[in-house]
Amino acid sequence: MREDGLDVIIDKIGNIFGLTGQSTGKNPIMIGSHIDTPNNAGKYDGPYGVIAGLEVAEKLRNHPSQSRRPLMIAAFTNEEGVRFQPDMMGSLVYAGGLDVEMALNARDLDGAILRDELRRIGYSGDMTPGAITPHAFLELHIEQGPVLESDNIQIGAVEALQGISWQRITIGGKANHAGTTPTRLRYDAGLAAAHVITFLRRLVTEYSSTSVATVGQLAFKPNSINVVPSQASFTVDLRDPDEFRLCQLEQALDAYLGRLAAEHCVIVETERLARFKPVVFDRGLVEMIVDSARSLEYSVMKMTSGAGHDAQMIAHICPSAMIFVPSRNGISHDPAEYTAPGQLDSGLDVLFDVVLKIAK
Amino acid sequence: MREDGLDVIIDKIGNIFGLTGQSTGKNPIMIGSHIDTPNNAGKYDGPYGVIAGLEVAEKLRNHPSQSRRPLMIAAFTNEEGVRFQPDMMGSLVYAGGLDVEMALNARDLDGAILRDELRRIGYSGDMTPGAITPHAFLELHIEQGPVLESDNIQIGAVEALQGISWQRITIGGKANHAGTTPTRLRYDAGLAAAHVITFLRRLVTEYSSTSVATVGQLAFKPNSINVVPSQASFTVDLRDPDEFRLCQLEQALDAYLGRLAAEHCVIVETERLARFKPVVFDRGLVEMIVDSARSLEYSVMKMTSGAGHDAQMIAHICPSAMIFVPSRNGISHDPAEYTAPGQLDSGLDVLFDVVLKIAK
Repeated sequence: MREDGLDVIIDKIGNIFGLTGQSTGKNPIMIGSHIDTPNNAGKYDGPYGVIAGLEVAEKLRNHPSQSRRPLMIAAFTNEEGVRFQPDMMGSLVYAGGLDVEMALNARDLDGAILRDELRRIGYSGDMTPGAITPHAFLELHIEQGPVLESDNIQIGAVEALQGISWQRITIGGKANHAGTTPTRLRYDAGLAAAHVITFLRRLVTEYSSTSVATVGQLAFKPNSINVVPSQASFTVDLRDPDEFRLCQLEQALDAYLGRLAAEHCVIVETERLARFKPVVFDRGLVEMIVDSARSLEYSVMKMTSGAGHDAQMIAHICPSAMIFVPSRNGISHDPAEYTAPGQLDSGLDVLFDVVLKIAK
Repeated sequence: MREDGLDVIIDKIGNIFGLTGQSTGKNPIMIGSHIDTPNNAGKYDGPYGVIAGLEVAEKLRNHPSQSRRPLMIAAFTNEEGVRFQPDMMGSLVYAGGLDVEMALNARDLDGAILRDELRRIGYSGDMTPGAITPHAFLELHIEQGPVLESDNIQIGAVEALQGISWQRITIGGKANHAGTTPTRLRYDAGLAAAHVITFLRRLVTEYSSTSVATVGQLAFKPNSINVVPSQASFTVDLRDPDEFRLCQLEQALDAYLGRLAAEHCVIVETERLARFKPVVFDRGLVEMIVDSARSLEYSVMKMTSGAGHDAQMIAHICPSAMIFVPSRNGISHDPAEYTAPGQLDSGLDVLFDVVLKIAK
């Protein structure tokens, strides 16, 4: 950002912003995404949208429309929520959905505090999150799913985002010797966790083709070969584009956990890690994306995103929308994540064209 | 051992022996167990049998029979198999069931090698395991189960041990984004693992009241909230006192894993960690234990042990048997493991009486 002549500002939650053209006094067009990733994941999810913002700033510098609207390139803190929860933390705090002091007190599994970690890496800034209200927000991103590729479409104009429900479930049983404890006297927390995992798959399969459930993180205690697990702790990720259906899924899981606790004589505790309602993006911006794609002769479709994105937070404070490009084999959060350079360029072309339209 | 005037010998696998009365030239009576424990477990499982051996040596020193037979107090290496596999490693190597060089090459999950770790802690000895053949072996141990307590019996004369089958199962699926991947396109290694866990419980419940199955250790990769697990690795502990039934359980699991791989489009790999056939102890020694208990006016019963013990290995090289005392609430491998001091003394009384009989 500094090399490109942008003014760099860090806010209190570690969001990084690069500003240009502030002399106009107008609210800036914000372009951005995030630069963190899950463990052992790909390089496109996130950084693409930030680097594209820098490209737009570069292109605009020598463009006649450059003075109409300032630009604000954003790299939001902790979008993935791998180490600290909730996910999409930087944009959530920026949009006023979570108090910055509460967010800074988040602890990782080893007890480290986000506030200290941001200081340690030099990204604990001075700006109050949300201090600059964008005129509009655009996020360019890989699809992270198979839809664009399988339909052979170059550009996705994202008109809505799924709702997301994250919780941690901890099941408490009783540690016992694996050889001497008869089956009828076992309170096996691992077995109870396995029942929840198979239940969730049945639930979403029977309920709606739009619903998905994932148990991605799991740990047993004491985690010894010859000891019945006394504790199983795991995460549940539920998503649906419809808020009513998402609530029903959550309630079905709650009811199942109650039955499970009684049947297996185990203690079940749940902790909410994140909950985001489905988001509908700004219609005007979505139409602009469709128009820009068409005028540049790219194939385009409107779509719903299955993933959560910073744009769903920023949508609370200004008109927002997203542009998707295809992901090879729909793979994401994996080193095999890939989008061809030509497709990355197509997304950038559309983004730049939309920014020009907004700036006018 | 040194304080008690015993000659201490360490063998190449780190077994610790304390010898006394070697001047007689006869084969020693071996008394012992192990001093390692699972993570966050109790203090009785193992050390009781070693400390009891030291007590017997102390009592014998001033006893008229002391010169009849040497004593060899044993603390066997790595009975629990928590960090290095297989379990009961020290006694297995001592009995000639596993080559000492192969055992020393065992690696833990962090890649550390047992050979190096024994050197590091100063317990890589010179003696060839098995160099001294015992005349007989006695292991005093807590029951680690509820039978003696619930039947209000003071002493268990263990006449047989369950067979044990340990394997590690690794399921390979595909890492995908938790939001954007439709259920029908998922290859969820964690879900497949959950099916194996619930299958095992059904299997042993339907098959035989003598069979038990435990999945005690489990890990997901990449273990992120918002990523479908690409790998699930877990251990299976199967036990039955009958070898034929144990083989049938293993075959039923194998058949299930084949069906699971086909149905879920996942790759299933199995690795054998340990396999021990059921063991029947020396009838003469078991009768001696019963007689000694009765003559000391303790209530006594013959029983089968559900846990594996060093005695099952040493039984291959000399007449062996075990003496059990009750475990409160049958709890073991947990900090709540407890046996009252008076009950510990009762076990020691019987052990000492049996040693006197053998020495004659």
